[in-house]
Amino acid sequence: MKYQHNFNPTISDENIFSEIIKEKEYIGYYNLTSQNTTAFKEYATTVKQSNIVVIGIGGSTLGTYAIYKFLKHSKNLSKKLYFLETTDPIDIKSKIEAINLKDTLFIVISKSGTTIETISIFKYINSLIKCDKNNTLVITESDSKLSEYAKINQIESFDIPKNVGGRFSVFSAVGLLPLAIVGIDIDELLNGAKEVYNSFFNKDLKYNKLLNKARFFVEYKNSFNMNVVFSYSSRLEGFNKWYIQLWGESLGKIDINSTRQGLTPIGIIGPVDQHSFLQLIIEGKRDKTVTVIKVDDFHSNLKIPNIKLDGLSELDYLNNLEFSSLINTQADATIESINNLNDIPCDVITIDGVSERSIANLMYEYELLTSICAKFMYIDAYNQPGVEAGKIILKDKLKDSIK
Amino acid sequence: MKYQHNFNPTISDENIFSEIIKEKEYIGYYNLTSQNTTAFKEYATTVKQSNIVVIGIGGSTLGTYAIYKFLKHSKNLSKKLYFLETTDPIDIKSKIEAINLKDTLFIVISKSGTTIETISIFKYINSLIKCDKNNTLVITESDSKLSEYAKINQIESFDIPKNVGGRFSVFSAVGLLPLAIVGIDIDELLNGAKEVYNSFFNKDLKYNKLLNKARFFVEYKNSFNMNVVFSYSSRLEGFNKWYIQLWGESLGKIDINSTRQGLTPIGIIGPVDQHSFLQLIIEGKRDKTVTVIKVDDFHSNLKIPNIKLDGLSELDYLNNLEFSSLINTQADATIESINNLNDIPCDVITIDGVSERSIANLMYEYELLTSICAKFMYIDAYNQPGVEAGKIILKDKLKDSIK
Repeated sequence: MKYQHNFNPTISDENIFSEIIKEKEYIGYYNLTSQNTTAFKEYATTVKQSNIVVIGIGGSTLGTYAIYKFLKHSKNLSKKLYFLETTDPIDIKSKIEAINLKDTLFIVISKSGTTIETISIFKYINSLIKCDKNNTLVITESDSKLSEYAKINQIESFDIPKNVGGRFSVFSAVGLLPLAIVGIDIDELLNGAKEVYNSFFNKDLKYNKLLNKARFFVEYKNSFNMNVVFSYSSRLEGFNKWYIQLWGESLGKIDINSTRQGLTPIGIIGPVDQHSFLQLIIEGKRDKTVTVIKVDDFHSNLKIPNIKLDGLSELDYLNNLEFSSLINTQADATIESINNLNDIPCDVITIDGVSERSIANLMYEYELLTSICAKFMYIDAYNQPGVEAGKIILKDKLKDSIK
Repeated sequence: MKYQHNFNPTISDENIFSEIIKEKEYIGYYNLTSQNTTAFKEYATTVKQSNIVVIGIGGSTLGTYAIYKFLKHSKNLSKKLYFLETTDPIDIKSKIEAINLKDTLFIVISKSGTTIETISIFKYINSLIKCDKNNTLVITESDSKLSEYAKINQIESFDIPKNVGGRFSVFSAVGLLPLAIVGIDIDELLNGAKEVYNSFFNKDLKYNKLLNKARFFVEYKNSFNMNVVFSYSSRLEGFNKWYIQLWGESLGKIDINSTRQGLTPIGIIGPVDQHSFLQLIIEGKRDKTVTVIKVDDFHSNLKIPNIKLDGLSELDYLNNLEFSSLINTQADATIESINNLNDIPCDVITIDGVSERSIANLMYEYELLTSICAKFMYIDAYNQPGVEAGKIILKDKLKDSIK
């Protein structure tokens, strides 16, 4: 008789690290930091249109949106970026009505090439304006049906590497090409990602930080089954959404022991959600970890003016305070009030500023953290088998309803 | 010797209902359904400006935003509504730059009258344009400092009843007045709320439905500590945010037995989040209930056109399908795939259409559900003591930094 088991052994940091090193050979996102961006930048210089509409959903848009939303008001961008991603008819109509389609480049992004939402919306666009090589660009896997469409119609097409999953694709053509077109410095993005890459793989600061954090999250996943990211800048709203997809879809899996795993991501924004979710964190059940994200330098000197309002003199102590100081002090007060409780795990990430490098630092760090957590959890971070059943049901229902 | 205890007894529906009936005597939101709206409508007719800027945060804006976001593309609204709520300097600057301040009515909303974010932003506005009775309106408690400011400056001021909490205030002046000004039918809103009020208090359909749902959520709160609202319309994004505040801040409390309570609200949007959060629901830990919200009639005949794209013929079965059918079939497929698993509690709310009555139905139902859950949990739904400590720390830090 032979007794086999795969109970989780105690895992050393070295074990996990060597698993990641192995994975780096065949999972593509890790090495996007060192890719050549010349083709993206060259294409970007040829774009004449003022509006860039990305048609895509999930991993095809969230990362791009996160970076664009973070930077758009702080950079002098030459073009506007829009996203069409839902099948909500009111949303489609209202967004399209606000855009001059004749001055628009459409970027159709779908890894599989046959995403229902994306192709349906693209067909609708085709009924409004002729889509051809002059106003359309495709980003997809090299041998997809969408790539075939592009070839037949001589439409320029960029590849999503097969080993780069949608939610890990922000530093591939999926994110870099639209961002380069609107005027974001994509080399600086990659520099930012590379800094984190180097720090981790050279076993510098990020090595301990990320391994410890992942170990804690997984070790205490049954006590703290939610991970709250509390971002103190409205500019990070897109980052929060991207994080939710990355974390939820990568870690919500059945492990090698057929056990359901998962850490639930929650994204909130400060100070707005001090007036919403914070009460639950402070007095509710101890089922959440909290990561506060701060922006060190908003590059803004916007101030509360030295104005006295009748009756409201008790707030005059705020006069002459910069809003950037106010929001960062609000973050610090929240951190202190959480830490004073002594029973809510809380860490703080401070990014340098509102720059390509800073947002890429943050996003690449979260990609690595996700991969490491998945290793601790004995799951595959890169597939999403759970949503396949729904797709088959949808197809059956639609075919039935059309018959 | 006397042995006292307050272990939770088994609670009958009748007990809870009579507690709610008692509470209705002193908690103000219940009876907002039957208030007189004449003053709001009369004020609305006097507003000449094209832009309405609400300055407020949390309960002062979320409900109004939810209704406005739901209806704005489906109604022919006469004015545009904006919200200034965060202290993020980039957000404040970019929003204000996009608005013609000379053609703007500023509505300053703060229940306490001294909300730091609100007064700070209002002061900043004062440095850009003269704010007086011609372009400013105040909504606050009758004896607040902000009310004093309004009186001294002869600025019109509407009251927030003392017994109506911020997150339950959408059907008070807080929500109704800005919405009336931009052209929303506020009487229809109240009719929608009243329908649910009647159905519950007359022990009609909503009585069993809400009591059963609340009982289930509270009974299984340790197994299912998260409640996901999965809204199949981008127009419900504001509703999700409002729900998160209502649910999180009302139920995240220490109960009468000094035990931490709380159910964590999560708001996601379909079909977009099928490509994000759904994988976690389907394969992750069984720690979530799911409520799917559908819109029966989008009042839209927007179609996928009968267009064939080279290479993409496998999706031609979608041709001629209305987008509203597609999104609702997507919702049905998600519901079926969840129900097939047999171990995720799931209910479905279908609202009639994109109308005042429908969104008010939904919001008032959630207010009642929140109150009922709080009764089952032996907590006070209407306070928020957990955020007070942070406010004191903030004030100390700010005063220190300014010295």
